[in-house]
Parts: sequence; C-alpha cells; structure tokens
Amino acid sequence: MPKILLTGFQAYAGSHINPAAEVVRALDGAEIGRGVVRGLHLPVMLDTARDLLEQAIAEIRPDLVLSVGQWPGEPVIRVERFAVNKTSFEIPDELGQRPSDQLVDETGPVARAASVPVAKIVDALLEKGIPARTSDTAGTFLCNTILYRALGACERLGNGALCGFVHVPYLPEQAAKIIRDLKAEGKLELHQRADLASMSLDMMTVAVRTAITITLED
Amino acid sequence: MPKILLTGFQAYAGSHINPAAEVVRALDGAEIGRGVVRGLHLPVMLDTARDLLEQAIAEIRPDLVLSVGQWPGEPVIRVERFAVNKTSFEIPDELGQRPSDQLVDETGPVARAASVPVAKIVDALLEKGIPARTSDTAGTFLCNTILYRALGACERLGNGALCGFVHVPYLPEQAAKIIRDLKAEGKLELHQRADLASMSLDMMTVAVRTAITITLED
Amino acid sequence: MPKILLTGFQAYAGSHINPAAEVVRALDGAEIGRGVVRGLHLPVMLDTARDLLEQAIAEIRPDLVLSVGQWPGEPVIRVERFAVNKTSFEIPDELGQRPSDQLVDETGPVARAASVPVAKIVDALLEKGIPARTSDTAGTFLCNTILYRALGACERLGNGALCGFVHVPYLPEQAAKIIRDLKAEGKLELHQRADLASMSLDMMTVAVRTAITITLED
Amino acid sequence: MPKILLTGFQAYAGSHINPAAEVVRALDGAEIGRGVVRGLHLPVMLDTARDLLEQAIAEIRPDLVLSVGQWPGEPVIRVERFAVNKTSFEIPDELGQRPSDQLVDETGPVARAASVPVAKIVDALLEKGIPARTSDTAGTFLCNTILYRALGACERLGNGALCGFVHVPYLPEQAAKIIRDLKAEGKLELHQRADLASMSLDMMTVAVRTAITITLED
Repeated sequence: MPKILLTGFQAYAGSHINPAAEVVRALDGAEIGRGVVRGLHLPVMLDTARDLLEQAIAEIRPDLVLSVGQWPGEPVIRVERFAVNKTSFEIPDELGQRPSDQLVDETGPVARAASVPVAKIVDALLEKGIPARTSDTAGTFLCNTILYRALGACERLGNGALCGFVHVPYLPEQAAKIIRDLKAEGKLELHQRADLASMSLDMMTVAVRTAITITLED
Repeated sequence: MPKILLTGFQAYAGSHINPAAEVVRALDGAEIGRGVVRGLHLPVMLDTARDLLEQAIAEIRPDLVLSVGQWPGEPVIRVERFAVNKTSFEIPDELGQRPSDQLVDETGPVARAASVPVAKIVDALLEKGIPARTSDTAGTFLCNTILYRALGACERLGNGALCGFVHVPYLPEQAAKIIRDLKAEGKLELHQRADLASMSLDMMTVAVRTAITITLED
Repeated sequence: MPKILLTGFQAYAGSHINPAAEVVRALDGAEIGRGVVRGLHLPVMLDTARDLLEQAIAEIRPDLVLSVGQWPGEPVIRVERFAVNKTSFEIPDELGQRPSDQLVDETGPVARAASVPVAKIVDALLEKGIPARTSDTAGTFLCNTILYRALGACERLGNGALCGFVHVPYLPEQAAKIIRDLKAEGKLELHQRADLASMSLDMMTVAVRTAITITLED
Repeated sequence: MPKILLTGFQAYAGSHINPAAEVVRALDGAEIGRGVVRGLHLPVMLDTARDLLEQAIAEIRPDLVLSVGQWPGEPVIRVERFAVNKTSFEIPDELGQRPSDQLVDETGPVARAASVPVAKIVDALLEKGIPARTSDTAGTFLCNTILYRALGACERLGNGALCGFVHVPYLPEQAAKIIRDLKAEGKLELHQRADLASMSLDMMTVAVRTAITITLED
C-alpha cells in the first residue's frame, strides 16, 4: 500500500490564505489509488520548511512526494519538470530572509528532474477539462528548493520514491482581495496587474488528486 | 413583480460552448429578488441577435435587461459602463459578416451609459470573493451592439427599465481545449497566449445573480 | 497654414519622466505637412490640465489638437476612438485628487468620438513597421478627460478642428527603473508585473508625427 | 586576445526576420573589450544548428560563446541561468521536426548552468536603462539545446571558455506584422495576443555588447 506525502505551503507575504495549504487540507487522509495521503503543511521559511520536509520523508518513507505551491498570476495548473540548485528570492520569506544567488545544496547537481510522469499528468488534466501545462521552471523561491530537496532525499532513501511539484493559480478570493486592496490604496492601476487569474479550490483539488492517481498507475 | 430579461450568446468561432449561454441556462426561470428571470439565447449573428433582442424587449417589457458575453482571456468578471455607436468586428460572426467601422444605429448617440449600478455591483462581487472590475469598453463586436441596442430599446419603451452587460472569462474546459488544440497542431507557443485564464460556471452564475439582486435592490 | 496643438502630460506618480512629454518636446516647433506644431506640456492635475488645454485651444484656434499620454504596460501605440463623460481615477493625480464616478462635463454627452482618422492612422503606422492598434477606451483618468474636453472645446470653436489622442508605451528606461526598484524593495515578483513592455522615444515620435501627417492629408 | 563566438538564429516559423540574426550581423567583426566577435548564424534546424555550433567551437576555440535567440512576447532582455537536458518542441523546426520529451544529450547531466555572470549582466543592463531580467528557463526548443550543447562543448574543450544565452524580444516590425496579418485574416482577437511587446534593434545590440563586455571584465 503506497504511502503518499503531500506538502503544501502556508500563507505568506501578507496573504491570509494559500491555495496550496487548502488543497493539502482537502486531501489529507484521502485514499487515492491504493494509497493514503499524509498531508504536511510547510511554513514559508527556508530552513524550517526544508527540515520539516526532510524529517517527514525520513520518517514516513513515502512512495510518492507531491508538493504544491501557488504561482501568483498563473492561469493554469503547472506541473514542474525541473528543480535547480539555486536559491534566489525576489521577496523575503516569513522570517525576512532573502538569499540571493545561493545554492540549495552545496554538493548537489545543477538540477534534478521531477520523477513523476509530468507529460502524462498534464494530458490527463487537459482530458478532464482542467487547464494545465508543463513548466520548465519552478522559480528560485521555496517551491524550487522543496522540489530539489525532496528529490535528493528520495534518492538517498533509495526506495524508488517519486517526486513532483504542482503549481496552482490563486483562489478567486485572493484575486478579489488584491483588487479590493488596490482600490482602497489607490496605488496601482488594475491594467498593470498580471496576477488576477484564479481557479476554484475544487478544480485544484481534482487536479492534485489526478496527479497522484496518474503517478501511482504509471 | 419585476421582469428580468437575461440574454447570453451561443457558441461561436468554432467553440462548442459559450459560458454566457450556460449562465443563462442556469438562471432561466429563477426567482431573484422579487423578480423572475426570462432567459434568451442569442446567436452570434449581428442582425438576428439584434432583432431577437428587440422583439423580446418589446414583448416582455422587462424592468431589467442584463446581457452576458464572454471576453476571451479576461481573468475576472467585467461589468461594462458604456456601449459605443460602433460596429467593427476583428473576427467574422457566424454568418461570416465582418463589418468594419460602421455605426450600430445611424441616428443614435456616440455612446450610451449602462444604467445598472456598475460600481455597486463590482463592490458586491468583490465582497463575495469574486474577482471583478468595472470596464470602460465592451469592445466593438456583438456584445457592445447588444448593450447599445438594449439601452436604446428600453429608452423607447419609456418604462424606466435598466440595462447592463457582464463579460465573463472562459470556462476552464475552454482553456483546456485551447491548450489541447495548440498541442495537437503545433501552431503556437503557449507563452504567446493571453487567453488561458478561466472561471468556474458556478462562480459566474453567482456573479450574474448578484448583479441582478444588486440592481433590483438599488 | 494649419495650426497643430500637440499636448503631452508631465511626469507623475513618482516617475521622473513621461514619454508623452518627451514626444511633445521632440516635435515642438516642427513643421509637419503644411503645419507647425505648438507643443503644450500639461501637469497631471485635473483642473489645471483642463484649464491650460482650453485656454490654449481658445488662443491658438488650432486646426488639429493631438494629445499624447502614456499607458503603463501597453506594448503598442494606441489610437483612441472615444472619450467618455466619466472621471474615475484609480490613482490620485499630482494634487492628491481622486474623483470617483464623476462627470467630465455636467452638460456634455455620454461620449465623444475622436475626429482624427483613427483607422487610417493605425494602418499607416503598421505599414511603417510600428506596432499600433485602435483602442475603444482611453480610460477614465486624465487622458480621457483631456480628449473629451478638447473635442468639446473644438466643437464650440466651430472651425472644424480635429481632435485625437495617442497612448504610448513606457520608455525602456522606465521599465528598467521599475525592475530596479522592485529588486531593491523585494516587494513584488517580476512575473506578476504586466507593465514591462516599452518602446523607443524615436519610434513614438515617428508615430505621433505620422498621426499628424495622416490627419492633415485626410 | 579573447575570441568571442556570437551565435544567432535565422528566421523561422514563417517570419522573414529574426532579431537574433540581426544582432549577430550588427556585431560580427566588432572589437569588444579586448576581443573580436566572430558571428555565426544558425538555422532553426535541430541537428544542423547543433553541428554548426560544435564545429565552430572546435575550430575557433573561443573564450566566450554567447548565443542569442528571440522569445516571442517577452518585453525585456532575458539572460538565461540554465540549460536543461530536454528537447520538447511546441512548434516544428524548419525541417518539420518536432521532438517530444527527448534528451539533448543521452549522457549529459539534467542541466548545465550558464557560466557567464548572469546577475552582473542584468544589473549592468538595468543601470544603462535597458529592461532586463534573469531567467530560469530557456525553454525546451532550440535555444535551450544550443546553450546546453555550447556548455558541454566548452567543458570538453577544457580551456575555461564561458557560455551564455540572451533572449531578446521581437523587433517592432515583427509585432507590427503580426497585427497586420491578424487584421487581414480575421482569425484572432488582438486582446488575446501576448506577443506584441518589442524592442529596438539598437537597444538589443547594446544589450548583447554589454553582456560581452561584462563577461570579459569579470
């Protein structure tokens, strides 16, 4: 019976919600395929997130590690192909840290490839009517770090565990809040914003569930 | 008991679905506020759509005419402030007509202002967590023509009927189909597309229902 | 010998430069077609800009009033078709005023149509290899007010003067400064920004010169 | 005296021009820093481009290999940080080839890191008022293949040669042609297009020259 570790980041940067955390909440304990989902919420703090992830992988010895993060402005589900050995934050994390042009792992390779079947997942999502695409960059913020670290930890575990990362759009209520805040502050013109696309939590949850199913069946 | 005429366009330009038609289907016959919704599907054919609209307004003598259309790529609900006296199609309608730089009405004014409470509707949507904004252009395709014509017909009716227009994003399944088609055809790179944002039918339907409620209460 | 009044807004909202002002500086005094350009810089202050414009029109009695403004994030030259009777600022002007949902002119029509040959200008620009498009909204900030007011003033003048408005993208140095500032502040992620497109001052100047030439020849 | 190999792709996908080829034409033979630029035009044909590149590197034994490609719709100069071991074309190359999910090099690592000083180049460009950013993906089309191959070839050469890749926006005339074609064909609405941003050839050429200077000085 396969063990599935599903991680999602908590709210950050002044937002009160993170769709990644909500998806994890929705699927924690769910039976998918022949496996059971173990949900893990990660704070948007570089060191803590990494440590919690690596401890969970060591303890649970999962067969699949799927991580979820939000990508502001992205209109579709993005399934990541790669994690790179680079940590360079455009905005500070929740502890105020903002590393620039640093390595994720001093002794690791330039990049690691996600080991879930990315193209099959995207095709399955599109078939279900869920907008999705493969992505060649998970950025250089925490999402990338977590995927890079998960891949490394599973490699060391040596049990053939698969790792992947799914980026989700904003929830509609987040886009609505951005507009409300901008209207209140008179700070930015709406037509300059590229982060107003959103997706329902239901659709995101089906997408992540589908990614797990396709990976277990593969 | 107020009579509500709700119009929505049918599928066009090779698409098999139009969210505007689906919203009308979902709300046809619904009681909203103290009124009942009469749904009207309009084909994307310039003359036919105009004639059907004007006949329905003459027969039903509605207190509120709300029209719904899709705006490809738009990430949020758009409530229109104006309709202009201009018909200029970037793409042909379903009869292959493609008027350029023509008037909607030879004897009409340069523009007409939507008479529903646009700002209140947008605020109510944002309050509910539905991404929305006011818009200063309904384009120069059929959506604009229908709003311009509805405003003119209601003015002639002289019963103080209010008119408005709501633009909705694509449904997720439409964005998914665009991606599937592009992948199959190898014609365009995804990063060149600006029409991948979408919204659930449920949220669109709540948005249009809210626009009706706010207008009737105003 | 036709008199050409060319207006352009000064820098605002913390920016040190406005391409509209630069284009006016570049063309002030130029002979275009059979006419001479009179440049007028307008501050981004609602009442002052309006008064300066109307005084200049009354004194100069121009045959053509062409106004230029920047549209943050717009990648191409936009030639406006309409000005609407609505003043609703998303951001405050340089005096801190932020009118909401007000009329430009209590006694004016819902909208006025630009009287320059918009479609011909766009075609001429495209023919020269300058990216351009017609636009159906000049927004509800000062640009719209100035076009609406210029059309009204020329109508009252009764000499058949033509009026138009050209929106220009950012200059490259403005986009570069936005990125530098965002990097320094760690406030916003670049992928959320939709205002990084720009155009060279030379190309903007040729575009505005062409708009004048086409209008005078029409 | 350092030898600089500057490569740029030729026109493809029905376009009559490629800014990358124009930048190479503009800088071929130029003395930059203490070096001389050897320009190399590469066809958008997977095998031929790779072979021409590797032959040139073997023959010239350059100290710096800088490659240039266009990224449709990108509004700024992008300096690439990584090349990945993945070839997956969204559109066919000029020989009609469209590999999907293949490796660039059967025996190569998951990714290679560009060895030019990416962050310094971007800072220098921004300082000059040229919009620019670092990028974490060069895609999976030919641009990525060429950077991956150049890095591999220089590694084998063992002379410490540096390699980098600069993505440039469209030229204005390309964006103008896209709009002209869409208007003629009535196929797509302009507001759905995300590829209308452009940059002048002069600015691109300064950008690439600056990238070379900064790398040689580093």
